[in-house]
Amino acid sequence: MVKESDFEFVEEPARVPGEGQALVRNWMLAFEPAMRGWLNEGESYVPPVGIGEVMRASAVGYVVESAAPDLAEGDLVTGTFGWQDYTIVDTKRPALFGGANKLPTGASAEQTLSVFGLTGLTAYFGYLDIGQPKGGDVVLVSGAAGATGSVAAQIARIKGASKVVGIAGGPEKCRWLTEVLGLDAAIDYKSEDVGKRMKEECPQGFDIFFDNVGGEILNEALLNMAQGGRIVLCGGISSYNKETLPPGPSNYMQLVLRRCRMEGFIVIDFIHRLDEAMTDLSKWVAEGKIAVETDVQEGMENVPKTLLRLFEGKNRGKQLCKIAEAP
Amino acid sequence: MVKESDFEFVEEPARVPGEGQALVRNWMLAFEPAMRGWLNEGESYVPPVGIGEVMRASAVGYVVESAAPDLAEGDLVTGTFGWQDYTIVDTKRPALFGGANKLPTGASAEQTLSVFGLTGLTAYFGYLDIGQPKGGDVVLVSGAAGATGSVAAQIARIKGASKVVGIAGGPEKCRWLTEVLGLDAAIDYKSEDVGKRMKEECPQGFDIFFDNVGGEILNEALLNMAQGGRIVLCGGISSYNKETLPPGPSNYMQLVLRRCRMEGFIVIDFIHRLDEAMTDLSKWVAEGKIAVETDVQEGMENVPKTLLRLFEGKNRGKQLCKIAEAP
Repeated sequence: MVKESDFEFVEEPARVPGEGQALVRNWMLAFEPAMRGWLNEGESYVPPVGIGEVMRASAVGYVVESAAPDLAEGDLVTGTFGWQDYTIVDTKRPALFGGANKLPTGASAEQTLSVFGLTGLTAYFGYLDIGQPKGGDVVLVSGAAGATGSVAAQIARIKGASKVVGIAGGPEKCRWLTEVLGLDAAIDYKSEDVGKRMKEECPQGFDIFFDNVGGEILNEALLNMAQGGRIVLCGGISSYNKETLPPGPSNYMQLVLRRCRMEGFIVIDFIHRLDEAMTDLSKWVAEGKIAVETDVQEGMENVPKTLLRLFEGKNRGKQLCKIAEAP
Repeated sequence: MVKESDFEFVEEPARVPGEGQALVRNWMLAFEPAMRGWLNEGESYVPPVGIGEVMRASAVGYVVESAAPDLAEGDLVTGTFGWQDYTIVDTKRPALFGGANKLPTGASAEQTLSVFGLTGLTAYFGYLDIGQPKGGDVVLVSGAAGATGSVAAQIARIKGASKVVGIAGGPEKCRWLTEVLGLDAAIDYKSEDVGKRMKEECPQGFDIFFDNVGGEILNEALLNMAQGGRIVLCGGISSYNKETLPPGPSNYMQLVLRRCRMEGFIVIDFIHRLDEAMTDLSKWVAEGKIAVETDVQEGMENVPKTLLRLFEGKNRGKQLCKIAEAP
């Protein structure tokens, strides 16, 4: 398990922006389960964060000094600014890799980092491109009270699912799923027999399972897929902090018997279709069809602890931490 | 493990065919790993074979008595005739479910039950529809010396794979894969480090993995898939005789990191496209592009033992058993 003492607080003077650069005061940091993977050594879809390097993180901040023509003091910007008070951004680089984007029109910092950020986009492309809803789908979402799961479940409803069932931990999250997000049912994995409840809720099986959790929940879902179903492998938070890999889903041969597909994806592969996603997501948020929930902690000293909240199942919606006053 | 003593030899008089029926003398029986699954209780893609019922099996036989207008004495026919000397077929039913088809034009009994039978069709639809080759693919096939794997590997070559690697047990099968079938490389899972050899043969990773085996071989393959790769889940013979399900592939989250798809299928779902498959397969066999190998045992008393050969890895190519003289 990643722990607070794995991180060190170090002070050094902020640098002065060179040509095409700007100095950004970081205001709000975003947290994602995938960050745990960035701390592991070895080849992956992004390079690992090395020992001694600033922890990588999406953030929103405001420009305090600019030597770039397209950024002015006070501009709100978003990018991969990391766990630090100030960041030098280079406007010639993409926002994900050292640059900065202005916030989407009309979007708050919270929306920018949640529904319009990596987790919202992950839900969008994962559900639509990998899940390939056909209308009338029976849908299961694990980690449904998380930032990605909650958006995926709501997109399922928008796209005509006939039934959406969410899995989350604890009665409070489950109530939120049914009463606020309007899901048809919620399964509390902390107190209920998940496999039994899946069967009760949808005896005909699930057409789409959007999985953020893996482990036993995935294994049970494999026994409850409808013929021709799609498992959108988005994440596997149940295993991220394990020293050795836990066993895989022993029921995987159900993919054959039920003629199902299990497919993984990484949102950055879809970045060329960002405009399309932003158009849809903005519209749905404006129409009130997607409720955006954030859990906002405060203070740079609480940043490592805030990351742990994800793995302790404490957050409902997007986990954020404010490390400066609003501009 | 299924064993000879699970089967009983019972004699009773052959029935007389009613209207639209014929009596068939069974000549050649076909064996497939999937037959093991038919012996398990519980819901599956076909009903289980109950205790006391005739064991289900594809076969070729010849008509000895006919009360059906479209079948004459001496006609060679194929269908799901089961482990018995004589079968009553009903021409109003499909061949898979109690009826009978004449043999494909020019095809021998061996070809009918192998490349033109369920295993050949499984290779065809699995590789083309689930594997979706794009040309230039780097392909891995497990169980490559089996009836399905050997045809899948040869279709891969026909469809422009840039490299085809087969996994099989023992030097004799491996030599057959490279020298007779023309595969680029063969990995002997009995004597070699399979994961290491996958990496050596294809450091760039596999675009398509056609899996008949599951277990450790699937787990290693997950670490060696190329980005966007497809795993065609055809079978999992390594687990068919286990009392409890072995753990699933612990590396399954590589599907996310490598953006891969793992998909199961059952050949009977493609039966409406039989003509298309038969046209292609007949052409490839006629052109010598698909070598058909059969392992023919003899005698009704050896039928249960012949099924075991599949799980002992003894067969090369299609496992058959002749239970009568040629007509």
